Amino acid sequence: MTPTVAVLPALEPIEAAVVSGGGVLTDADAADALIWTDPADPEALRAVMRRSPARWIQLPFAGVERFLAAGVLDPARTWTCAKGIYGPSTAEHALALLLLASRRLDRHARARGWRGKGEYGDARRLIGGTVLIVGTGGIGRALAEMLAPLGPRIVAVNRSGDPMPGAGRTVPVAELASVVGAADWIVLAPALTPETHHLFDAAMIARMKPGAWLVNVGRGGLIDTGALVDALRRGAIGGAALDVTDPEPLPEDHPLWSFDDVIVTSHTANTWAMALPELAALVTRNVRRFAAGEPLEGLVDVARGY
Amino acid sequence: MTPTVAVLPALEPIEAAVVSGGGVLTDADAADALIWTDPADPEALRAVMRRSPARWIQLPFAGVERFLAAGVLDPARTWTCAKGIYGPSTAEHALALLLLASRRLDRHARARGWRGKGEYGDARRLIGGTVLIVGTGGIGRALAEMLAPLGPRIVAVNRSGDPMPGAGRTVPVAELASVVGAADWIVLAPALTPETHHLFDAAMIARMKPGAWLVNVGRGGLIDTGALVDALRRGAIGGAALDVTDPEPLPEDHPLWSFDDVIVTSHTANTWAMALPELAALVTRNVRRFAAGEPLEGLVDVARGY
Repeated sequence: MTPTVAVLPALEPIEAAVVSGGGVLTDADAADALIWTDPADPEALRAVMRRSPARWIQLPFAGVERFLAAGVLDPARTWTCAKGIYGPSTAEHALALLLLASRRLDRHARARGWRGKGEYGDARRLIGGTVLIVGTGGIGRALAEMLAPLGPRIVAVNRSGDPMPGAGRTVPVAELASVVGAADWIVLAPALTPETHHLFDAAMIARMKPGAWLVNVGRGGLIDTGALVDALRRGAIGGAALDVTDPEPLPEDHPLWSFDDVIVTSHTANTWAMALPELAALVTRNVRRFAAGEPLEGLVDVARGY
Repeated sequence: MTPTVAVLPALEPIEAAVVSGGGVLTDADAADALIWTDPADPEALRAVMRRSPARWIQLPFAGVERFLAAGVLDPARTWTCAKGIYGPSTAEHALALLLLASRRLDRHARARGWRGKGEYGDARRLIGGTVLIVGTGGIGRALAEMLAPLGPRIVAVNRSGDPMPGAGRTVPVAELASVVGAADWIVLAPALTPETHHLFDAAMIARMKPGAWLVNVGRGGLIDTGALVDALRRGAIGGAALDVTDPEPLPEDHPLWSFDDVIVTSHTANTWAMALPELAALVTRNVRRFAAGEPLEGLVDVARGY
């Protein structure tokens, strides 16, 4: 079968990827499959779906909660997202934030003068410390590989407690509260679901080690922002490195901008420039699989929400 | 033999390390060996040497050029330094600076408001790029290991051209000019010697790729600071991440503080807090070796200057 595939909004590298996978480009009205390239516009997708018979719809990013909440994930169609493929890019950003936090590069970046000994006395190596990785999907697994040569202890948390490769220990999320206090750095990278929403609320943050840093490369809603601001105001934790926030974008007058021990990276862990080559390769593989009637990569479980 | 060892200036963890290695603590006047714990005071060491018969003197840091220049490295005694043992710590700092530069975390750290798409369009992953590592000692080798999971091409430069493990290609320093233009990030970590002084002068900097970053975790004198400032003023290179500078400390009114594309980390790649456990372990090993008449770790070749 030669599938007809619509790419909307039109995007040349993705159209080329469809052709590489053996697809024929067409309009949505005549498409067997639809590659949706706008990560943030479920309403526009809904409008296209009304006129499209597409049986399979590929979404461009890993997190689908915005499309799910908008009710566009029609269970009569097959949905795929880009989960997994952006793991290494986002993990690299998490590693960058961990090293920035441990060596306090944020302070150096803001400094406009040489600092004496003692001013960076809390700078430390990762070795000898513990990194807690919450979420053992593509990001968590890639991060563990990147951390291995740096030598920290790695503890992982996921739904099942099934061991994550590279972690010294993996616990189920139900036991998060019992391990969070041993961590020097906590990296959040699970999917945002009703179960993980506000996983770091006031009670969980209160269990963090004084001086520990919270690094969020997942979704803003994993953290109760108000509780985080409160903990930072009291100096109860070391700091926070946030690629994602709630609300997002973070308003200019938000208190999170006021702390010296916070860095916000404006959702750039996986920029469009970083993502496009990975997405194009995924589209080529999935069009090929669709044509061959094989299972697609990145299938969305609409009931579970990821 | 039970060696008598003086630790000056006195430092409790190093004294404990001497005892762990089988040494007996004594004053400099009666010492077979001297552990010098001040990284920056050759004159004080000279004064102690006048009254000490110590046959072996251990220096606390990797770079000995300041002591060499001061003429205290009496060739009639055996000198050791801490070369190699700080490699992983300094390499971790270099990795932190590479990731900061590639993802422009410096701009995020200075920002006090959400940035839109396009403002970080030059953020990129290491994969697909080339890291040039100049110097294949402890720092360079550790950095190559840390970079492996991140996937950049690695080209190494050393005196001999002997292949460095982890590098796709190693060239002798005489051929540096022919490979420098292919690098997206250049990490400087060789010893500072008359041969490497101003290795990155105006001519070498002019060969750098536009947009490439220069990362210096070696010694400030490896770069001609004036030539670097000039290149930055012209926007000829991407930027510079400098743990070490020339002069050092960098004066408050130095032009390097004025650039958005420069971060200076005030010689904190291997802080005393990071170094002390490594130095203590080295002292224990070397006291044990000295007692047994075995070759010491970190022997300084006084003629070569490292």
